[in-house]
Amino acid sequence: MALPTQSDDFPGWYQAVVKQADLAEPSLARGTMVIKPYGYGIWEHFQRAMDDRIKATGHENYYFPLFIPAKLLEKEAEHVEGFAPEVAVVTHAGGEDLEEPLVVRPTSETIIWATYAKWVQSYRDLPLLYNQWANVVRWELRPRVFLRTTEFLWQEGHTAHETADEAIAEARMILDDVYADVLERVLAIPVHKGRKTAAERFPGAVETLTMEALMRDRKALQAGTSHYLGQNFAKAYGVQFQGRTGEMEYAYATSWGTSTRLVGGVIMTHGDDKGLRLPPAVAPYQVVIVPIYRTDDDRARVLAACDGLRERLSPARVKIDDRDEHRPGYKFNEWELKGVPVRVELGPKDLDAGQVVVARRDTGDKQTVPDGEAGARITSLLDEIQQNLFAQASAFRNEHTFEPANFDEFKSLLAEPGGFLQGNWCGEGECEAKIKADTKATIRFLPLEPGTVAGSCLHCGAEARERATWAVAY
Amino acid sequence: MALPTQSDDFPGWYQAVVKQADLAEPSLARGTMVIKPYGYGIWEHFQRAMDDRIKATGHENYYFPLFIPAKLLEKEAEHVEGFAPEVAVVTHAGGEDLEEPLVVRPTSETIIWATYAKWVQSYRDLPLLYNQWANVVRWELRPRVFLRTTEFLWQEGHTAHETADEAIAEARMILDDVYADVLERVLAIPVHKGRKTAAERFPGAVETLTMEALMRDRKALQAGTSHYLGQNFAKAYGVQFQGRTGEMEYAYATSWGTSTRLVGGVIMTHGDDKGLRLPPAVAPYQVVIVPIYRTDDDRARVLAACDGLRERLSPARVKIDDRDEHRPGYKFNEWELKGVPVRVELGPKDLDAGQVVVARRDTGDKQTVPDGEAGARITSLLDEIQQNLFAQASAFRNEHTFEPANFDEFKSLLAEPGGFLQGNWCGEGECEAKIKADTKATIRFLPLEPGTVAGSCLHCGAEARERATWAVAY
Repeated sequence: MALPTQSDDFPGWYQAVVKQADLAEPSLARGTMVIKPYGYGIWEHFQRAMDDRIKATGHENYYFPLFIPAKLLEKEAEHVEGFAPEVAVVTHAGGEDLEEPLVVRPTSETIIWATYAKWVQSYRDLPLLYNQWANVVRWELRPRVFLRTTEFLWQEGHTAHETADEAIAEARMILDDVYADVLERVLAIPVHKGRKTAAERFPGAVETLTMEALMRDRKALQAGTSHYLGQNFAKAYGVQFQGRTGEMEYAYATSWGTSTRLVGGVIMTHGDDKGLRLPPAVAPYQVVIVPIYRTDDDRARVLAACDGLRERLSPARVKIDDRDEHRPGYKFNEWELKGVPVRVELGPKDLDAGQVVVARRDTGDKQTVPDGEAGARITSLLDEIQQNLFAQASAFRNEHTFEPANFDEFKSLLAEPGGFLQGNWCGEGECEAKIKADTKATIRFLPLEPGTVAGSCLHCGAEARERATWAVAY
Repeated sequence: MALPTQSDDFPGWYQAVVKQADLAEPSLARGTMVIKPYGYGIWEHFQRAMDDRIKATGHENYYFPLFIPAKLLEKEAEHVEGFAPEVAVVTHAGGEDLEEPLVVRPTSETIIWATYAKWVQSYRDLPLLYNQWANVVRWELRPRVFLRTTEFLWQEGHTAHETADEAIAEARMILDDVYADVLERVLAIPVHKGRKTAAERFPGAVETLTMEALMRDRKALQAGTSHYLGQNFAKAYGVQFQGRTGEMEYAYATSWGTSTRLVGGVIMTHGDDKGLRLPPAVAPYQVVIVPIYRTDDDRARVLAACDGLRERLSPARVKIDDRDEHRPGYKFNEWELKGVPVRVELGPKDLDAGQVVVARRDTGDKQTVPDGEAGARITSLLDEIQQNLFAQASAFRNEHTFEPANFDEFKSLLAEPGGFLQGNWCGEGECEAKIKADTKATIRFLPLEPGTVAGSCLHCGAEARERATWAVAY
């Protein structure tokens, strides 16, 4: 089936790619999805890279329960206000009604900080540097596969520190050294890093740091957040420790998460009208070899050559598509749709000529490579493609980052072509809310370090206090 | 705190080890647990090994939702009867009562087979060879950390096949090449493989294959099961395909699972009165180096030597315990309790003598090794320890496998010393149930291949039809 083009119908294109490339499908319970093997493969490669970096920066994994007693959720006021409307509640189990309902975790700060109260007695017990990989549930009114699902998979880090400075540095280190690094080097998604406004902060956070990416429809995707939670959760759950001076103090917290929504981010950052384009670092197959033959004799020698090439490409992830029921042209289209970075064509004529045909998914370029050089050439091509997808996405993002001179221009640029709009803001939530009501654009981020701003607010004309970046977001 | 001895109070020993070695702790919702970093590390190493073998045998991972519409569970009669009493039910979500309650998955056959109905049209779509890593919930009346928890982590494989033979071969291959292999080579837990009786089968299975291990208290642990499900789920959920002859046929199923209960299995197979003994393959730290020093000068040169040794031991997982607040003796005890396979002691005198002291956790042996040989010696020691733990557990299991001559001897052996009891069985569920009511022993397994049996049933004296193995089980 032909895909809608991105320019005609981006949501339709997205849905069709998810379906036709066999990434995921909606499941029976409202807003849930089945992540199919090809989509899950992307997630697994992301997960491995993220997990390695989380560990390399000194964190260990653990696992907290799915179920949180409903009362526990209520102890941090902002947090419960933020999440209570979205939770799923177990009221019945083991054949009986429960005395106390259990909330299915929407995020785990509450149960984790209630437990840290037992783990932390002295400053010597700090810092706690932990992460977990888990499923979470948030009831979604407008579910959308990968981007906004009732259940999703994620990692959530939860650290506890002796001082505010240490916790602030942790939240920032996660953003810089872990999250942005994995996004840009592994998913090839360029990100802006910044602070959220009060209105966009995580419920219960003092400061939310974010990385924001631009999708091909010029909408922003919040790609991961890292929160400095101050002492809010320590106070709500009684996490006190004896400090170096002997005084009892409350611990300082961070939490940070990235999720399966990033698979949606990969699709919408790199995809084109022919389908997916996968960064080699997360592609389930980095290379597909399509053997071409008519006779059984040809078949045998072509497949033997394919096997040989696969071995030379190790440890790259190589698929030989030896299905007899489909013709090469059908296979080319299918692997193009599925975004495999490199396609190799190998037939009797190529064998006789001592060559293979190599096609890049990112540019569509096709070249003939001497067989003896194919291994090295394809291996370096995978690096080139990884770099090129990042470069293309960066160029696209930069071309769609604007500095409107006034609010009229803001609205006009937002409508066409859309993108990130940077300008002065008075710092008032009311003004921010009006812009949102008027244009659907939200402030995606403020600079990580507040600087001095000269001039007046783009919208209300009052004295500017922040330099903000707006976009319409997922 | 001193541990109870295994012989005095095995359950108390188990609980104390879990707590003192920082493996896990009970959480707030009934029967749930927090898997702490040290316990989760064991799980992660198991998981990686198991995942590698599942993939090496041709399976891919995917992810199905946590929530299953309650109605869906009801379609396979035996299955719902088996699981309905144990399920947790979400009745309220997103601020509203749900029209249809959602069951939190106790296992995923129902939702997976309802979905396979869409994925399978032709014999060309088969086999489906898939696995998922997920959390599941079964309401437990007598929860016990790792062994029996309301929520646990596991992998569940779900395959669909064109023929019964193929599905039967798959269930057996998983048992032999994946499960028993990982248990014996990675967890160093020797297992008996066999078939379950009808009474012990998975609800909805035609045949349940099992691997059974013996714990140090001479109780059996079901360590993993692989089910041949016949066409039961295909018929319940309408998974039909056009076969090679053009006829519509129902697909044949297998499912198979192993879980975090195996962390409990590791504790109870290898642990001794001093605490854990971890097989190197799953030990979060394979080697701990304890530096010994009094002066700052010594500290610097000893720690430098520790770093050097750690580098030479790469890629082994090495911890240098350089905590200043604890003395070496305290550290020795702690790492013994935590079951680290090899401990290295390194002090100024050792440095001067060009040697290190190496202690094995499995045997308690301590030897002095010339510094230049330490890397190679410790690396090969890790292999030896892995082998030795398996050999010790195998010897223990074999010493506690008996062939009682009659039912009186059966009861006497079961009471003291306990273990696996092998004998003839008439094949009647009624007789099996009486033995269980009388002795708490259940038939853990029958031979994988039924053979001819001569003689009479150990319990009722009727003609024997099977050779059975009983034990009291977790």
